[in-house]
Amino acid sequence: MLSVRHFHHICRRGVSSVWRGISARAGQRLDIGGIYPPIATPFTKEGDIDYQSLDENLQKYDGIPFRGLVVQGSNGEYPYLTAEERVEVVRRVRLALPKAKLVMAGSGCESTRATIQMSEHMASAGADCVLVVTPCFYHGKMGSRALIHHYTQVADSSPVPVILYNVPANTFVDLPVDAVIQLSQHPNIVGIKDSGGDITRIGLIVHKTKSQDFQVLAGSAGFLMAAYLVGATGGVCALANVLGQQVCELAHLCTSGEWDKAKDLQYRLIEPNTAVTRKFGVPGLKQAMEWFGYHGGKCRCPLQTLSQGDLEELRADFSSNGWL
Amino acid sequence: MLSVRHFHHICRRGVSSVWRGISARAGQRLDIGGIYPPIATPFTKEGDIDYQSLDENLQKYDGIPFRGLVVQGSNGEYPYLTAEERVEVVRRVRLALPKAKLVMAGSGCESTRATIQMSEHMASAGADCVLVVTPCFYHGKMGSRALIHHYTQVADSSPVPVILYNVPANTFVDLPVDAVIQLSQHPNIVGIKDSGGDITRIGLIVHKTKSQDFQVLAGSAGFLMAAYLVGATGGVCALANVLGQQVCELAHLCTSGEWDKAKDLQYRLIEPNTAVTRKFGVPGLKQAMEWFGYHGGKCRCPLQTLSQGDLEELRADFSSNGWL
Amino acid sequence: MLSVRHFHHICRRGVSSVWRGISARAGQRLDIGGIYPPIATPFTKEGDIDYQSLDENLQKYDGIPFRGLVVQGSNGEYPYLTAEERVEVVRRVRLALPKAKLVMAGSGCESTRATIQMSEHMASAGADCVLVVTPCFYHGKMGSRALIHHYTQVADSSPVPVILYNVPANTFVDLPVDAVIQLSQHPNIVGIKDSGGDITRIGLIVHKTKSQDFQVLAGSAGFLMAAYLVGATGGVCALANVLGQQVCELAHLCTSGEWDKAKDLQYRLIEPNTAVTRKFGVPGLKQAMEWFGYHGGKCRCPLQTLSQGDLEELRADFSSNGWL
Amino acid sequence: MLSVRHFHHICRRGVSSVWRGISARAGQRLDIGGIYPPIATPFTKEGDIDYQSLDENLQKYDGIPFRGLVVQGSNGEYPYLTAEERVEVVRRVRLALPKAKLVMAGSGCESTRATIQMSEHMASAGADCVLVVTPCFYHGKMGSRALIHHYTQVADSSPVPVILYNVPANTFVDLPVDAVIQLSQHPNIVGIKDSGGDITRIGLIVHKTKSQDFQVLAGSAGFLMAAYLVGATGGVCALANVLGQQVCELAHLCTSGEWDKAKDLQYRLIEPNTAVTRKFGVPGLKQAMEWFGYHGGKCRCPLQTLSQGDLEELRADFSSNGWL
Repeated sequence: MLSVRHFHHICRRGVSSVWRGISARAGQRLDIGGIYPPIATPFTKEGDIDYQSLDENLQKYDGIPFRGLVVQGSNGEYPYLTAEERVEVVRRVRLALPKAKLVMAGSGCESTRATIQMSEHMASAGADCVLVVTPCFYHGKMGSRALIHHYTQVADSSPVPVILYNVPANTFVDLPVDAVIQLSQHPNIVGIKDSGGDITRIGLIVHKTKSQDFQVLAGSAGFLMAAYLVGATGGVCALANVLGQQVCELAHLCTSGEWDKAKDLQYRLIEPNTAVTRKFGVPGLKQAMEWFGYHGGKCRCPLQTLSQGDLEELRADFSSNGWL
Repeated sequence: MLSVRHFHHICRRGVSSVWRGISARAGQRLDIGGIYPPIATPFTKEGDIDYQSLDENLQKYDGIPFRGLVVQGSNGEYPYLTAEERVEVVRRVRLALPKAKLVMAGSGCESTRATIQMSEHMASAGADCVLVVTPCFYHGKMGSRALIHHYTQVADSSPVPVILYNVPANTFVDLPVDAVIQLSQHPNIVGIKDSGGDITRIGLIVHKTKSQDFQVLAGSAGFLMAAYLVGATGGVCALANVLGQQVCELAHLCTSGEWDKAKDLQYRLIEPNTAVTRKFGVPGLKQAMEWFGYHGGKCRCPLQTLSQGDLEELRADFSSNGWL
Repeated sequence: MLSVRHFHHICRRGVSSVWRGISARAGQRLDIGGIYPPIATPFTKEGDIDYQSLDENLQKYDGIPFRGLVVQGSNGEYPYLTAEERVEVVRRVRLALPKAKLVMAGSGCESTRATIQMSEHMASAGADCVLVVTPCFYHGKMGSRALIHHYTQVADSSPVPVILYNVPANTFVDLPVDAVIQLSQHPNIVGIKDSGGDITRIGLIVHKTKSQDFQVLAGSAGFLMAAYLVGATGGVCALANVLGQQVCELAHLCTSGEWDKAKDLQYRLIEPNTAVTRKFGVPGLKQAMEWFGYHGGKCRCPLQTLSQGDLEELRADFSSNGWL
Repeated sequence: MLSVRHFHHICRRGVSSVWRGISARAGQRLDIGGIYPPIATPFTKEGDIDYQSLDENLQKYDGIPFRGLVVQGSNGEYPYLTAEERVEVVRRVRLALPKAKLVMAGSGCESTRATIQMSEHMASAGADCVLVVTPCFYHGKMGSRALIHHYTQVADSSPVPVILYNVPANTFVDLPVDAVIQLSQHPNIVGIKDSGGDITRIGLIVHKTKSQDFQVLAGSAGFLMAAYLVGATGGVCALANVLGQQVCELAHLCTSGEWDKAKDLQYRLIEPNTAVTRKFGVPGLKQAMEWFGYHGGKCRCPLQTLSQGDLEELRADFSSNGWL
């Protein structure tokens, strides 16, 4: 799968191993298991990125046993950032973050060539791996053939490991399981973040890729416990921006098999999770962050701040579960 | 909630307790926990119900530790049966089935009044409880207000306990969680069969109804293990028509906390389950039944038999998981 | 409940012309061109059919140049009527209606065999033709093969001409154009009522069936003018229950080529039409009927009466266009 | 990458007439009536923009009575171009195109700020007006409030008139009619391109904005005639890239009231139109362009070339209507 184009990439970068994701021992992949908040991007009143607030958020996250951070997931408003901004945020996060923690950078663009470029930029900025959302504008044409081609091209040339990213609620593209299975065999594709919430699908993906050391991350805290049960090894959870310690605790209870305790905690996280994702989206997430001591603030337009009614419902979703 | 109309019902039926579902000890509800196959309806070559074949299927099910049978679920082709046929099938099943096993009869119709009548007929035919699908033709108008009204009326007058039935893939109606919560407080509504496969939703329903002794049944074997983990107490699984022993074994592993063994079994059931439900529907289920020694046969039209290609894919979904 | 099977099923293939729809001159089909209200079914306070009110509505319709009436369309709440009620309403309407006006009776059921029976009953009750909605419960399996089989079986045995009925907003089944084209060649299928509102599709159906004397009726007043322009010859319009004279006037302007006048009238009908269909459904239609001197009244449950807010919006949709 | 922020943002409210779209006589708007092909972007084998081929296409379009060209519509693969490429293509087209013909440049981005910037760049590159697609990534939050705010901000600052662009098949956002009505009052918003194909909606928009000199363009040739009838004044039609003369002829027949001739032509354009839009998308459009003497070529990845089967179906859609 090493094309001429790709070889050129390698030479240009001067690295000795093709992919940083592959260690000395052939076939061993980057371990991405654990919890990640897909961090929000704070803005100044003028709408520019507020790096000061970002740094302060990162400091607060420092005490939480995250495996790393996802930078430029849907909650980072990446579609609202310029290409330069996307890369710069990753660079800043990498600088601020302890080495032991992973930076998983969203590098997905609509075109294959832009995604390839962006993945390289992200790697240069210090990303440990890239999270590549399914392209979606021409969704009716984004079947297995197109998506396998896309991800293979991207993974062939990416200097860091690639994680597939399926988020049908935003993209209206549901990466077919047969495509996931085929792509799991690529040495530079190490896993998938699946935000669809279809636990049957997650179980099937784990089952059909078990010979591949392919890692599945739940894309939301609402089904995190169930995902662990069926074989996921971690989660990228918007709610971890707000209740990071609790989400990590839930993950710990799951990996240690304390399912009864896990269940009680899982229950109390469902409504807050839905509130900061499907129900109120990024504006809801950023508002909740404010209540818990983080910098959230406004979104870039056209995302609007919550109405008073929404605000009260958001608060109730936290308070009725004992978090506020 | 006892209307005049309902009182008339009671008097006419001459029963001493209002609802059979409520035992002597006030508030104790019918325990519906366990596995149920939603049985298929065999037809003769002329398209009439083949009661002989039905009886033979029932005999074969006898050795399997089901909690009971669902008669007139979606897999029973109930929309293709006349009202008389629906009741008669229930009557025959009740006669053939040991007393200890429950007959859960589908009594849902589009109108509230027809559902009330059908529930009474089902009770008279021996049903232990009724499974009431959401009405759906005017789906745009089937919000919480309409559905709460519908189910309350039905439960007020039903001589046997009512189980809510949510199957959005067929109905395009997703019974809102707030409606489920409110309905869970009705003394004659004992649970819900949820076929949507949204494990977050199932967890939330368990969580929000925990003070109500409200029971949740998974509507499919694909997410049965996860559903048990988040608090479901059973399942109504099309696949149990074919691999009944295995589905019961999975349930047993879940209730006894043997999650590792459960996981391995769950994995192997996902593809066969999808094959006899979403992928190939009732024609697929009936074909698979034939392979496993049951009478399946043709569906009523307009449901068509599988094409040769579909047939081979169906077989592969079983054989690649070691079942054929 | 209409359980006697009709012997002429057996011999129907033996007769040279079993279809009333085919006149002495071979190939000439029933002319269904013109406007039809899909009449509402009034109920008494107890929820039974109010035949008195129905008769009074019919008398008021008498002065309007309708081509006929559709009985048991979606607006007639047919899913909420028993089989006997469906037939009885048709019988009553046929008795009350002048001979020159057609009774188009909805005879669609989920199963092919029930639809065949119902079509025969409707013909016996005096229906001039039957309107057969696509079966839809197992919508994922209702592709061209199943639907062509279904309609062919129904049309083969129906004593009166068959009109296809496509209403995807209710059924989630969109009768494929290739199926329509093939079915248009059946001598006993004379047309289609298409409620989808896709004017490109309507044009294509007219274009691809032009050698078949196949007639297309618009399923809503909102796109009636455009449908006439692309070749439809009439319409079944919920709004005609309320503004019957105006809908007929719009049809007249279209057939006489007075497009400018037609346009002005069409504009003023769009919002009232949307109000009594997609926006407020049958409850909205029945409320508006009350304002215009007809008996509307309540729907059967679970359809609910309008909220106060909806009521005001409904009124505004009529008054802002000069109708109230 | 176009990162310099324009100082005139600050002072834009201070000028009395910043919009080229408003002529000396207050309130008179740019007349956008007529036919536009949304031009395709040809690429070289290496995947770069092939300006030579683009120029040759433009020369061939020169003899066709288009009102202008849409540059960076969905068919231009704009989501696959960099910001610089988007602007450069517009600049080249403006240079090649006679002054009398309009360049309508797609300037929509996901964020309001990026759309504002892009609109300014497009105006600087010579665009006569900008076509602004609805933002869509966070589609669940793109209600009237967000979209009115977005378009108002963009129109306030755009140096050239703004045309709203509604294409729900790609975006899953359907710009609400109430938002369109409100936005039609903005002096710098002159019209809408609506690709949804809902003729009722188009009629309603014309009706409700008639006091605003607001212009509606049909977004597809499939419903062009019907759109003209209900008051549209033109169309942006993918098919015009292939059968430009014929689409213009259809528009001429409509505006001159020759509806019978128009109808015959409209019929023959439906299938080719569907083939190059919904059915086979941009790859289909580009293939068809090759057959008709234009440079189409490959799309950027992940869009794939057509399979052999698709190719034959595409050809049949043209040949069966007499175009090949």
